[in-house]
Amino acid sequence: MTRPFLPALPITILSQNADAIRTELHTAMKKNSCLKAGPEVVIRQATDTPSKINCDAVEVMIADPDLAAQIIPDCTNLTWCQSTWAGNAPLLNGGKTDYTLTALRGVFGPLMREYVFAYLLQHARNLDGFAEQQAATPPRWESATRMPLRGQTLGIIGVGDIGKALMPVAQSFGMTVIGVSRSGNAVKGVERMYATAELHQFAQQADHVVNLMPDTPGTYGRLNEDFFACLKPHSIFINAGRGNAVDDEGLLSSLDKHHLAHAVLDVFTQEPLPSSHPFWRHPKVTVTAHTAAESRPADVASVFLDNATRFAHGDTLLYQCDFAKGY
Amino acid sequence: MTRPFLPALPITILSQNADAIRTELHTAMKKNSCLKAGPEVVIRQATDTPSKINCDAVEVMIADPDLAAQIIPDCTNLTWCQSTWAGNAPLLNGGKTDYTLTALRGVFGPLMREYVFAYLLQHARNLDGFAEQQAATPPRWESATRMPLRGQTLGIIGVGDIGKALMPVAQSFGMTVIGVSRSGNAVKGVERMYATAELHQFAQQADHVVNLMPDTPGTYGRLNEDFFACLKPHSIFINAGRGNAVDDEGLLSSLDKHHLAHAVLDVFTQEPLPSSHPFWRHPKVTVTAHTAAESRPADVASVFLDNATRFAHGDTLLYQCDFAKGY
Repeated sequence: MTRPFLPALPITILSQNADAIRTELHTAMKKNSCLKAGPEVVIRQATDTPSKINCDAVEVMIADPDLAAQIIPDCTNLTWCQSTWAGNAPLLNGGKTDYTLTALRGVFGPLMREYVFAYLLQHARNLDGFAEQQAATPPRWESATRMPLRGQTLGIIGVGDIGKALMPVAQSFGMTVIGVSRSGNAVKGVERMYATAELHQFAQQADHVVNLMPDTPGTYGRLNEDFFACLKPHSIFINAGRGNAVDDEGLLSSLDKHHLAHAVLDVFTQEPLPSSHPFWRHPKVTVTAHTAAESRPADVASVFLDNATRFAHGDTLLYQCDFAKGY
Repeated sequence: MTRPFLPALPITILSQNADAIRTELHTAMKKNSCLKAGPEVVIRQATDTPSKINCDAVEVMIADPDLAAQIIPDCTNLTWCQSTWAGNAPLLNGGKTDYTLTALRGVFGPLMREYVFAYLLQHARNLDGFAEQQAATPPRWESATRMPLRGQTLGIIGVGDIGKALMPVAQSFGMTVIGVSRSGNAVKGVERMYATAELHQFAQQADHVVNLMPDTPGTYGRLNEDFFACLKPHSIFINAGRGNAVDDEGLLSSLDKHHLAHAVLDVFTQEPLPSSHPFWRHPKVTVTAHTAAESRPADVASVFLDNATRFAHGDTLLYQCDFAKGY
């Protein structure tokens, strides 16, 4: 196969994982050189320190949004930034809008579905109850209360590509899926969609709820005590979207009033979650460290190279952010 | 709809759950009376005590196999026994073969798939690691090692209706499924089937293995140290088939030698598992109390009524056991 002539693509990497991303890019380019019609990517700079960046030289960048936000106003020649994150609030709110910002997408669904179902099944099958019986002295050969997922309804707030990745799994367990989006427009495979204004009717129909809403101003604190009061005493609430969608006090109070059974939280208004926050010690709260679906350097390299081929050919890039809509 | 004329069907219930089964039968018949062309089921006796049974009067019976085995030689008028269990060794080995024995089937798959994936995901997502970090003083905001199910291979020993129920779930997580059966004949949706004689080649290809083999003489102790040595240091082994398929010493020794990572055991050669058995205290063994897929009285009632309609019409009953084959 003859490779079309394409000019080399000089790029800058600004990320906590700069070295790993560089390595993954080299590995992927070596593997794909015979197969793909992509440009030769030349890495000019790879660093985790914004102050080391030579801003004038930056045209194409792979960057962590929080680091990029510190220098991006000075990158006057920037045309495209590939983010290493799914959510890009630091750049979307950063003022500069005269470049193309692409998010990291399409890689989180498979990780997220394992996170969500690990915790739903932990409760459905009462793993802790059986573990306690095994640890007892003498050990206890007994059954423990369970509540099958089969026949239950999973509610997904934010049915984007990550939310959609949960659906085939939910359905394979015999669950019904309902969802919430801004518009409430029908989504294939979702039994019923609700608009954001119908959050409470949605919650009344769900057995368990997963929040995957992106970080947009309209969602702050929307998941409050009024919302949780619509759930059921057996409901599990999982937040893997954005921390500020949840009203922390409202959630804690709802757990204490048995509006729901348990909360599994991966994202928080302040991260890392401060040691003194009551979520850490509440018996009905599971805390994970924003690790439900971590971007891996190999995923960043793969999404970037796919987009780089489109960039070199003048095609539309995948996963473009909309500065006006804020996501 | 006009109901065809059918004579009433007098039955006997002998089960630890006799009362609950009677209640479920009444509930189900009331609900279905307008819909189903089934006979009127009249419960002559419902008890958990074999000695209370009037054996001469027994023609059709719903029974726990262990209780039925105590009286079945005296039930000379018995034509059909609907078992409340999936495995029926006590009756298959009971000598009497001049009646139709039907197993409880079609209801265990949905429960089994939740059991299997609850434990696979507990390890894949390292729920214990994150729980330890949350319980630490001060709590630790950290990632912990995980190994996604996506891309891994699930090996199922015994691809019957329960094993097949695992397949759509495995596939929805992006896993490949391989299987073992007596014949090794192809099964739709299974990447590769192996005959029982090829157990070791099968184990070499699997990341995780679930045993669902029924209780047949040829399987005693087949899952021994030679078998486990073919697995991988990250492999999870789940036994929810029959306890005597596993060589206990071989499994313990394999865990200590890191041939596999963890064993999740629901069935044992001796049940209840004796308090002194090393499985209870081994850090790499999870013990559950033969509860992976418990028959519920509502399931028994539903399968029985379906078969009762067939019985009344002279149709072939579902889930018939074969006394010659022993399952």
